[in-house]
Parts: sequence; C-alpha cells; structure tokens
Amino acid sequence: MSIFNMPLIIQDATAVEVLAESVKGDMGMLWMLISGILVFFMQAGFFLVESGMTDSKNAVNIAMKNFLDIAVGSLAFWFVGYSLMYGADASGGFFHWGGFTFSQGAADLFFQTVFAATAATIVSGAIAGRTKYTTYAIFSIIMTALIYPIAGGWEWNGGWLNNTDGIMPAEFIDFAGSSIVHSVGGWAALVAAWMVGPRIGKFLNGKPVEMHGHNQMYATLGVFILWLGWFGFNGGSQLAWGGDDATAASQVVLVTNLAASAGAIAALLFTWFKNGKPNLAMTLNGALAGLVSITAGCGNMTEGGAILAGLIGGLLVVFSIGFVERTLKIDDAVGAISVHGVAGAWGTLVIGLWGVDGDTGIGLFNGGGAAQLGAQAIGVLAYAVWSIGLSYIFLLILKKAIGLRVSEAEEIAGLDISEHGSLAYHGKRQREID
Amino acid sequence: MSIFNMPLIIQDATAVEVLAESVKGDMGMLWMLISGILVFFMQAGFFLVESGMTDSKNAVNIAMKNFLDIAVGSLAFWFVGYSLMYGADASGGFFHWGGFTFSQGAADLFFQTVFAATAATIVSGAIAGRTKYTTYAIFSIIMTALIYPIAGGWEWNGGWLNNTDGIMPAEFIDFAGSSIVHSVGGWAALVAAWMVGPRIGKFLNGKPVEMHGHNQMYATLGVFILWLGWFGFNGGSQLAWGGDDATAASQVVLVTNLAASAGAIAALLFTWFKNGKPNLAMTLNGALAGLVSITAGCGNMTEGGAILAGLIGGLLVVFSIGFVERTLKIDDAVGAISVHGVAGAWGTLVIGLWGVDGDTGIGLFNGGGAAQLGAQAIGVLAYAVWSIGLSYIFLLILKKAIGLRVSEAEEIAGLDISEHGSLAYHGKRQREID
Amino acid sequence: MSIFNMPLIIQDATAVEVLAESVKGDMGMLWMLISGILVFFMQAGFFLVESGMTDSKNAVNIAMKNFLDIAVGSLAFWFVGYSLMYGADASGGFFHWGGFTFSQGAADLFFQTVFAATAATIVSGAIAGRTKYTTYAIFSIIMTALIYPIAGGWEWNGGWLNNTDGIMPAEFIDFAGSSIVHSVGGWAALVAAWMVGPRIGKFLNGKPVEMHGHNQMYATLGVFILWLGWFGFNGGSQLAWGGDDATAASQVVLVTNLAASAGAIAALLFTWFKNGKPNLAMTLNGALAGLVSITAGCGNMTEGGAILAGLIGGLLVVFSIGFVERTLKIDDAVGAISVHGVAGAWGTLVIGLWGVDGDTGIGLFNGGGAAQLGAQAIGVLAYAVWSIGLSYIFLLILKKAIGLRVSEAEEIAGLDISEHGSLAYHGKRQREID
Repeated sequence: MSIFNMPLIIQDATAVEVLAESVKGDMGMLWMLISGILVFFMQAGFFLVESGMTDSKNAVNIAMKNFLDIAVGSLAFWFVGYSLMYGADASGGFFHWGGFTFSQGAADLFFQTVFAATAATIVSGAIAGRTKYTTYAIFSIIMTALIYPIAGGWEWNGGWLNNTDGIMPAEFIDFAGSSIVHSVGGWAALVAAWMVGPRIGKFLNGKPVEMHGHNQMYATLGVFILWLGWFGFNGGSQLAWGGDDATAASQVVLVTNLAASAGAIAALLFTWFKNGKPNLAMTLNGALAGLVSITAGCGNMTEGGAILAGLIGGLLVVFSIGFVERTLKIDDAVGAISVHGVAGAWGTLVIGLWGVDGDTGIGLFNGGGAAQLGAQAIGVLAYAVWSIGLSYIFLLILKKAIGLRVSEAEEIAGLDISEHGSLAYHGKRQREID
Repeated sequence: MSIFNMPLIIQDATAVEVLAESVKGDMGMLWMLISGILVFFMQAGFFLVESGMTDSKNAVNIAMKNFLDIAVGSLAFWFVGYSLMYGADASGGFFHWGGFTFSQGAADLFFQTVFAATAATIVSGAIAGRTKYTTYAIFSIIMTALIYPIAGGWEWNGGWLNNTDGIMPAEFIDFAGSSIVHSVGGWAALVAAWMVGPRIGKFLNGKPVEMHGHNQMYATLGVFILWLGWFGFNGGSQLAWGGDDATAASQVVLVTNLAASAGAIAALLFTWFKNGKPNLAMTLNGALAGLVSITAGCGNMTEGGAILAGLIGGLLVVFSIGFVERTLKIDDAVGAISVHGVAGAWGTLVIGLWGVDGDTGIGLFNGGGAAQLGAQAIGVLAYAVWSIGLSYIFLLILKKAIGLRVSEAEEIAGLDISEHGSLAYHGKRQREID
Repeated sequence: MSIFNMPLIIQDATAVEVLAESVKGDMGMLWMLISGILVFFMQAGFFLVESGMTDSKNAVNIAMKNFLDIAVGSLAFWFVGYSLMYGADASGGFFHWGGFTFSQGAADLFFQTVFAATAATIVSGAIAGRTKYTTYAIFSIIMTALIYPIAGGWEWNGGWLNNTDGIMPAEFIDFAGSSIVHSVGGWAALVAAWMVGPRIGKFLNGKPVEMHGHNQMYATLGVFILWLGWFGFNGGSQLAWGGDDATAASQVVLVTNLAASAGAIAALLFTWFKNGKPNLAMTLNGALAGLVSITAGCGNMTEGGAILAGLIGGLLVVFSIGFVERTLKIDDAVGAISVHGVAGAWGTLVIGLWGVDGDTGIGLFNGGGAAQLGAQAIGVLAYAVWSIGLSYIFLLILKKAIGLRVSEAEEIAGLDISEHGSLAYHGKRQREID
C-alpha cells in the first residue's frame, strides 16, 4: 500500500515514515524495471557476439536461437519457472513452489525473467553450427523452466545455500549470479558441447583448427551491449534504491565497470606479450570474463579487490579456452564454457579469498578465515553438479528421442539453409560469386 | 511548484502531502524522460530493420529517411505538432490548438516528440527502393506536423474519442498507440505503397517475387532494439510513477514482453508447421506484431490476455503479409502495413473482446458487453479513414507537383547512387567485382 | 546520511525536510547513474562511427582502440584522474589533488569516468589507419589520467575559470563539456593527425582524395547510439534530480534533441543545395556537430537558441571538414577535429552570443553585454592552448621514443593484420576473392 494512494489521516510522524518507505519502494521498483530493461538488451549482445564469432552460414540460426531464448524463456519462466524459483519453500530449501500467483510484483517478475533467458542463451553459442534447432528449442525451455529456477531458489529464495542451519559454514554469497546464472549456463554449455561433438573440421589429427568468426565488428558491438546490460544485471540485483541501497547499487555499477576493464586489459596484455600482437577476440572474452568474475561479489568487493578479481578472470579465460580446446578436445564455438563456467566459478570463489562485508574482511587473505571460502566452494560445486547432471540427463533423452545433431551434409551447407531455409546476407556480390 | 524549491513554512500534515505529491511528480518525470530516451532509440531499430530487409543499393537512402524522420520530425512537432495535439480544445474535440507555449513540461514534449517521429518512420519501410527523397521528406513533415498530431488529440487530449457525450458508447482505449501511432502509420504506408507502385521485378506475371533483404543480422538487431524501446513506448505511456502508477507501469512492461514473446513464437511455429522450417523474417515480424498488438491494451489486459493478443497478432501478420502481396498486389518492402496497420487495428479491437479494467471485464467475452468493442471499432475506423484520406490527398498533391517515384534507371541503379551519390559499403572486394 | 537508514526520532517538521533532501539525493544519484550508463554506451557509438567511416582493413584496430579507451581509461581515471580533477584545490584553481579517497560517491565517480573515456576516444578516429597501437595506448592513458582531468578541474571543480576573482569577466559556462570534453579531445586530435601525417594516398598532388568508409550502416547506427548517449551526457550533467533540477534536466534533454536535429538538417540541406544530393556522411557529422554545439549551453539556451546553435554547428562542420583537408592538408579520417574541436568551440562561444540565465539574456545579442562572451572566449582559448600544448609535448616524446606511425608496408596491409594479426571479416566470399 503506497502513501500516494491513501489519504493522510494517519499521525504525522507515522505519515513521514510511511512516505519514506513508500518512496523507497517506488524508487526501488523504478531501478529494478530499468535494470531489467538493460538485461533484456543483453540478448542482442549475445546474438551479436555469437553470430559474429561464428560462420556466416549459421548466423540466421543463431538469431533464431536467441529469439527463442527470450520469447520461449519469457513464457516458460512466467508459466512455471518463477514459481519454482520464488515460490514458498516446499522441501527443505531445495524445491520451491508458489502456484501461479505472483505476489512480488511485475517489476520483479520481469527482472527475474530476463535473468532466466540469459542462463539459457549461454548454451546457444557453445554448440553453434551443428545442433538441431528442435533439440535446442526443447533444451532452452528446460533451462528456463526447470534447471535454472530450481537452482536459483537455493540461494535467492532463502534456500539451503543461504542458510547456516545445515551443512553451510557460512551463508553462500552470489549477489547477481556468477554461479546461479553464468556457471549454471556455462556447465550446461560444457555438457552440450561435449555431447553434440565438434564441428566438422574443428580438429585435424587431434589438433584444434582456428575457425574464424565471420564478423568481429558484430562481436565487438555485442560485447559493448553486454557490458552495458551488465550494469543492470549487477546493479539491479540490489533489488532496491534509496539511502544505503542507492549508494550500494552505485558502488556495484562502479566495481562492475572496473572489473570488466581489468579483464579486458589482462587478456589484451597477455596476448600481446605472448603472441606479439594484442588480440581482439581474446580482449572481448577478457572483458566478459571480468564481468562474470565480479557478478557474485559486486556487493562484497573493494574497488581494488574487484580489479584484481577481473584481472585474474581475464587471464583465466585465455588459459581456459586453450584447455577446453586442446586438452578436453571440446569445440566451444564462442568460448562460453570458459567465459561463463570457469570465470563464474572464479567469481564465486574469490569472495572467499578477499571478499568484504562492509569494512570486515570475510576472505582467507583478509582475516576472514576459511568459512566463507568453504561456503563458496560448496555453492560452486553444488551448481556444477546440478547443471552438469541435469543437462546430461535431458540431453541424453533428447539424443535418443530426436538426436542432437544435424546431418553432415546439412552442417556443411550451413544451418541457415538446412534448418531455416534462408541466408543471412543477400546482395549483388553474392549472386555473382556463389 | 516543488517542495524542493520552497521553504517548509506550511503545516506539517500538509507538508507531508506536498512532499508526497512533489516526489511523485519528480519520479514520473524521470520515468517519462527515460522512456522517451528509449523510444528515441527505436529510430535506430527502424533503420536497421528497414535497411536489413531491403536491398543494399538502397540502404543509404533508408538511413537518410530515418534521420529525416527524427530530425525534421523533432523540429516540426516542436514547432506546430505539439500544439495541434495537446493544445486547448478548439472545435468539439476534433482540432486542438495551443499556440506555441508548452505548459506541460519538457519531459512530456520530448516524450511526445519521439512518438510523432515513430508514426512518420513507419511509412518509410513500405515504400523503400523506389520513392523520391524529396517526396518522402515532405510527407514526413506532413505526418509529424499534421496527420499524426491532430488524430492523436482525439484521444490523448480528451478529444471526441475520449468522451461519451457524443456518439461513443464507451471511452475509446488506446493506452500507448496501437491505433494512434501504429495504425495511423500503417494505413499511411498502405496508401503510399499502393500509390507509389511496386518495385521493378516485384511482380512477375502478377505473382509476387521474393526480394531478399540484404542483411538479416541488421534486421534481427533492429527488432531487439525496437523491443527494447517498446518498454519505454508502452511503459512510459503511464505518464507517471509512484504508488499505483509504479505498479501499473511495471505491469505494462511485463505484459509488453509477454505479448512480444507470444507474437514471435506464433510466427515461428506457424512457419515451421507450414513450411517445415522456422523462418527468421516472419519471427521478427511476429515479435513486432505482438508488440503492436499489446500497445493499446497494455493497461487493460491480464497476463494471459496479453499473451493471447500477441499470439493472434503474430499469426495475423503472417497471413496479412501474404494477403497484401498476393491479393492486394501491393509491394510493402518490409511488411509495415501488416505489422503496424493490421496488428494495430487488432490490438485496439482486442480490448473490446477480453480487455479488463482492474478486476472488471470490459470485453465481449468476459462479461463486459459490446459497448467497449463498439467504441474500439469506432476508433479503429476513425483512424483508418483519417490516415487513409489525408495520406491520399497529400500524396496526390505531391504526385502532381513533383512525382512520387524515381525513374526506372535510377531505381535499377539504386537510390543510394541516384538520390544520395554514395554507396553503403566500400571495400577491396567491391572494387574488384563491381 | 539518508533518512532511510535512521530512526525518525527527530522533530516532525525537520523529518519532512530531511526526507525531502534525502529523496532528492537518491533520485539525483539514480539519474546520474543511468546517465553514466548511457554515456558508457557512447563508446559503442564511437566504435561504429569510426570503423564505419574508415577502411575495413583497419576495423579491428579501431575496436581495439575503443576497448582500450574505456578499459584503460576506467582504471587510469579511477587511479589518478579523478583526484586530479575533483581533489581539493592545490594551486590557485589550476591543479587539484585529492589523494585516493572518493568522497563524492560511486555514482559520481562512474559518471566522471565515462566522460574521461569519451575525451580520449575522440582522438582515435582522426588518426585511424596509420598509427602505432602502442603509441595510441600510451597517449590514451595520458589523456584520461592527465590532460583531461587537470583541465576539467578548472571549471567543474570550482577552478580558475569558474571564479571571477582573477582575470575572468564572468564565470565561464560549460555545462556538459563542449570545451572541456569535446574541444580538448578535438584539439588533441588536430595535433595528433598533423604529427602522424596523412594516410598513404590521401593527398594526390596536394589535393585530398576521398577515402571511403567501408560501412555507412555502422556509421549511421553509431550516430544513433551517440545521440542516445548524449541525453545522458548532457542531461546527467545536471548532477541532480527533483524539483527545479528535474525540470532543468528534462529541458536539457529536450534542447539537446532539438540542436542535434537542427545540425543534421543543416548539413543535409546544405549538401543537397550544393551538390544536388543530400549526403549521408555529412548529415551524420551534422547531427554530431549539433550535439557538440549544445553541450556547453544546454542549461543556458532557449529552445529557439538551441536550434540556431545546432543549425550553425551543422553548417560549420561541413566547412571545417573541407578547410582541414584542403587548406590545412591534415588527414582527419572521420572529421573528429571539426565535429569535436570546432563545434565544441562554437558551442562554448554561442553562450556569449545568445545564452540565457533563466529569463535573463547573458549574450551579446540579447542584452547581456560582452562579459560572458569574453569569459567564453578565454575558456575556449585556455582549453585549446592546454590541449594543443600538452598533446604536442607528449606526442613528440612518443615520436622520439617509439615512433607514431607504422611502416608503409604495414599501413598498406592494414593495421588489423599488422598490429593485431586478425581480420574483421571472414567468409566464403573472402576466401575466394582475396
């Protein structure tokens, strides 16, 4: 009940308090709505990064996958996901269910919906260029309706990870979703990329071959859009505005920008020193890794700590991309496993290393002991097991039922033609050459 | 007068009320300004959709048309349109005029300006590839200065449609402009596309030939930007923030997202079942149709009602595009007539079918009787007659005076060269091939 | 201290005043944060404009420069720039230093950071296609850490330009940075473009040759994004929201849009009348010039005055681009000197011609006398001398130490290959043709 909608018949002192609370609620709703709008725009960023970093013959397919993520995701999360995530506790903090009533308000439901779509879309890039559209569509629904929301409730709806009654040595901290959104998406991408198998030509005699993206300009614009949207992703996760909440949310945006910058610079400098030339694709991934690395801890990091977290995230992603390709022999077309899975785990753990709670150190290296690190490790592990396990089960069912992969001929022709019957580009040049 | 600018010499109880009102005003202005900024960005979305869905030889021309819409539109609406739309009533709710003073504040003027530019820009895509730039420029001014603002005042300035004293069985509802902005634009596009005639090669022996757009990635990014901007378009039309207004505007954003999602899915699934392959261009148009379908009723729809409205809108647009091409033999290069005109009419009418006013059904199917449906039908008809009539008159004058269409040679060469003397793309490849 | 965080034990009347002040602070922080997020997005706009207006063989390099600007800029401004700009006065309003504590809050630091990155990025476009990446990287740090913040403090931290005790006939006015950001960037671009020298092939027998950009669609999208971001750039510079501040910030956004529109129309019409065809690149530059022209005076212009300022800015930029190329024989690849330097100076001076302070004219032509014009001229001169002088010194050092320019072979091959080892575009077509 807002003061704007009721007569001021109450006592004066009370009236001021009611007004204060009411205004704070309204400002919080405004900030959450604007943040949700920014997070929505991240879908465009994912679309550009994924299509730009892969072949032009699969670009329409990527557009169709991203549209599916937001469109089906919005409906699926509205229909069932939100209840599974933010419903009343139904089983010791593990499962939730709230029926189909949404008491927390439209701004919150919208904000949570675009988060769910993000978790789903992370998988899309990793398996680009060879996955059946039907299979992807069904898996996208499973992600937004089941895998993500149940896991999200463990922490963000006061579930078992957010509760020291049980095995947790401290409350797990994941402010905006390094684990809950990004690692869950990243580990699902790992399973999917492994089960679908590499694109034709990706490995030659067991060695990975570089498969160029078709448009690095799209990828660059996409990362700018993702960086932009992340201000809403992290900042909006304050879920409030006014007083300390306004200061805190602003600080979140500030450290988010610092960590992204540090991640970009780390990858840029590392590729420069290693190969003699600063590499764009790695710089882009470094920026994204910096963003993922601060997503869990953006409310629990000093500015210096955020920069360090982003810096290490930016380096990690470079090594991880090499490791996934060369050691695991997994073909992740856009580096999603490393950017979201590995940097997500890192961003969650780092709170246990040099995180702060206000002025108090809660990390191993700043006098907080090992309890927080333990809690963070349990969370990282739990989300990995959950996401890998469920992704494996559902993808196995899908593999048996309808198959994961298009035929060799379809893959070579490109998914745009074989799955969607149209090309991304048409022009005079194309007609003459192709 | 804001409490922030005056000493608190007033009685305490009053002071709280004054503060409450003042803060609500300020928050409303903030939301309207941010929404206006989002709607401004829709121009970039229109530019990308229209250029991506048409030939590369006309892409510069489309950029120039979109720039004209926002630039000339901003000046024309400031100079005369705003007065015609929001001025004092001058003739029984049909014409308004307010002189050149803008008492409603800069945030409102800005918000209304970007709406006017949207109405103008809808026409641009339909007649792409063959229309004289001069002709388009003049017509764009007429749209923003005359056709749109006069019609807008009928409803949004308490004109005859918003008034049950006369022939209206109920107050016409068009929250954010399914009819006022989109249908007015769409019907003008219909008249323009018909009068300008089809592009060379569009019809072969009376059958429509598919003329590919040159870059579906642009079109996809464009639709994401439009979807983003629509949150401001619909949400900002609450024109206020705080208390019930905050809840209502959030709900508007939520149902807008649901309807867009439903529209996209409907078109995606329909093309999938019909042609065996889910089609990108139709999915994009489906999302836009979903958005247009909820624009009138976003304050008067349950969430389920919004999804259904968007779903039907997404299907309608697929049929309508075929009907315009195959039956009417009109060449609408980007589907603007169907997306904005047809879905706009549908979005207006649907309020009379299952719209709600709070918890009360006002539609034919939910116990509201036929009064609202009648009012909606009158509004749809009135805007169609107005837009078709005035567009026809002005385009006829323009045809006689300067002509609507470039020469055949100019059209084949492309408007970029013939009208603007430059190409959209240059590169090594082009120099060698062209 | 916000009322949201303290018990209301204070007197009632006081409580209302405390609440009013507290809410105003919180709303101001919200507006500043959102504005900063919009300004951040301008980096994407600069990237698109600069890459679109230049050759595709240097597009990766431009992406890498823009990433560097925001990433290194964010770190450098955080580490030292903010202190130099907003620290305590240390030397008669010329230098500031505040140590490493940031008392003004995270929202302000973030807002100021993205401004600093903008100043740096202006240089990037002018020297595209031939500058060493290392050199640019170091100069970008110098801009954000030294040249821009020291100069910014002269005005925005109550320095000597903002103080009538000394030589200033009136307080210098530069609301959002026509001089402080844009001219400082533009004059640095002038020095850099002159010292680096023209691209190979730019001048043939002393006459400038048109070197086409490779993608005018990128440039168009980029200008739309810059225009969008400018609403935050100018509007956010109100640094507050609520009461008169809300009205003022809204008015700033309104006149910003009008001036941009006027600038675009002026350049469009001028090229139309002069060459018979309205030119896209010049229209884009005209819009940007209109934006720069209103950046200083957006709080001190009537709506008509803003339109006139933008109109003249849009014309000036067309002449200036010709003058820089044909008379100065300087190769500015994207027109940055004219758009930011010349229009920036114009936008600063125009306040002294027909600026207003509320209802009072402060310009030469509206009864304000010559004092303001004098103050504006001093400011314009001071920023020009400072930026040109320091840019020259640092670039000279860089030239001697590591060189400014890549080799002829590297330039012809393109910076993407020579400096970054990768191409912007890959595809079937490219493999067959190149």
